[in-house]
Amino acid sequence: MDIKTIELKKTILEDNNKDADLLREQLNDAETFYVNVMSSPGSGKTTTLVSTIRLLQNPPGGEHPLRVGVMEADIDSDVDAHTIADETSAPSIQLHTGGMCHLDAEMSRQGLREIGYRDLDLVFLENVGNLVCPAEFDTGAHMKVVILSVPEGDDKPLKYPLMFKEADVVLVTKTDAIEAFDFDSGRFLRNLDGCNPDAPVFFLSGATGDGVAEWAAWLDQKVRERQK
Amino acid sequence: MDIKTIELKKTILEDNNKDADLLREQLNDAETFYVNVMSSPGSGKTTTLVSTIRLLQNPPGGEHPLRVGVMEADIDSDVDAHTIADETSAPSIQLHTGGMCHLDAEMSRQGLREIGYRDLDLVFLENVGNLVCPAEFDTGAHMKVVILSVPEGDDKPLKYPLMFKEADVVLVTKTDAIEAFDFDSGRFLRNLDGCNPDAPVFFLSGATGDGVAEWAAWLDQKVRERQK
Repeated sequence: MDIKTIELKKTILEDNNKDADLLREQLNDAETFYVNVMSSPGSGKTTTLVSTIRLLQNPPGGEHPLRVGVMEADIDSDVDAHTIADETSAPSIQLHTGGMCHLDAEMSRQGLREIGYRDLDLVFLENVGNLVCPAEFDTGAHMKVVILSVPEGDDKPLKYPLMFKEADVVLVTKTDAIEAFDFDSGRFLRNLDGCNPDAPVFFLSGATGDGVAEWAAWLDQKVRERQK
Repeated sequence: MDIKTIELKKTILEDNNKDADLLREQLNDAETFYVNVMSSPGSGKTTTLVSTIRLLQNPPGGEHPLRVGVMEADIDSDVDAHTIADETSAPSIQLHTGGMCHLDAEMSRQGLREIGYRDLDLVFLENVGNLVCPAEFDTGAHMKVVILSVPEGDDKPLKYPLMFKEADVVLVTKTDAIEAFDFDSGRFLRNLDGCNPDAPVFFLSGATGDGVAEWAAWLDQKVRERQK
């Protein structure tokens, strides 16, 4: 399948926060919910999106399926956009950041236009794999999802506090590997508590499917609440 | 044990590359080899350093032990400097980057002064966990080590080409988990070949110790060659 790749133009705006607010307003008018997914490289963002999208497209309660799109941001390659296209029926596009380590609101807007956000209920941005810089830039999203995979270790909120502080929800992935990697869930939650005591946390395994339904149901509700 | 923490001053120099060359010259005069270790968060940098340092401090061939120091760079916390201090006899200091996602040559210099590089044969910089920004800044190091852990996936050279292109040597860690994570070593080497066909690659497991002796012996030789 052919994947559309957008080479993003860099526009350092004077006030990215103001631009992000404008973009959110525009998305509200279109009733499109926009979710910014952030994590380290290789923490399972794409795998988590695939299993989440499958559930959102086939809601177990019999509601109408959500129309979901995915924007894959990377410095190079279009591996992830292909995975989304091959493994779900969601439209996906690839955004190339021109070497940039994060996306801002104007870069988001370029992608959202291309994917046709007006015809979608929910658009995921899979941000560049990076626990530092993307935390500093409001992309205009309604929700920031931070993913941490078990092999990365339970100390990450101590080392990357801004990213975990900015999270509206935290997903812990690859939980099937918890024994092999000496990851202590209690210690992780205490570390997270230090910077973000209010964020809901879901523990997921892409390999076994554990936890994915609970997370997808929670997100599904957030999207539908917005549309009422 | 008390860990000295340095709050780095940000100095955006006009020409970081020139400053990095000056720093390397200064380190050459002192016969101190400086190694910049870069990777994603949680890829096993500290674990790899601990096992490597133990071998460098007890060379199996009976040579004099190398005097090794470690500078741990993080946005926050001093977890890793404590680990080095607790698990090796190497001096370690913590560098706080003030939110910055990378180190430059002047930030390196501040740390090297504090750790007392003149009395060391080898100083490791554990850079901020980030596969993007640290690749763009010459820290003045003689060698750039890039670590990729198996759970991150074999496609990373495609997505973060500059980091892998900049590597003088690549370490693949957590190889004991290779079965669980569908990491194809051949595919990884082909992906790496696309951006950096010449870098030596070592496959290591912190859990079993596999490969660590080969890598440490290679590095040990590089350090001693410089001192001749």
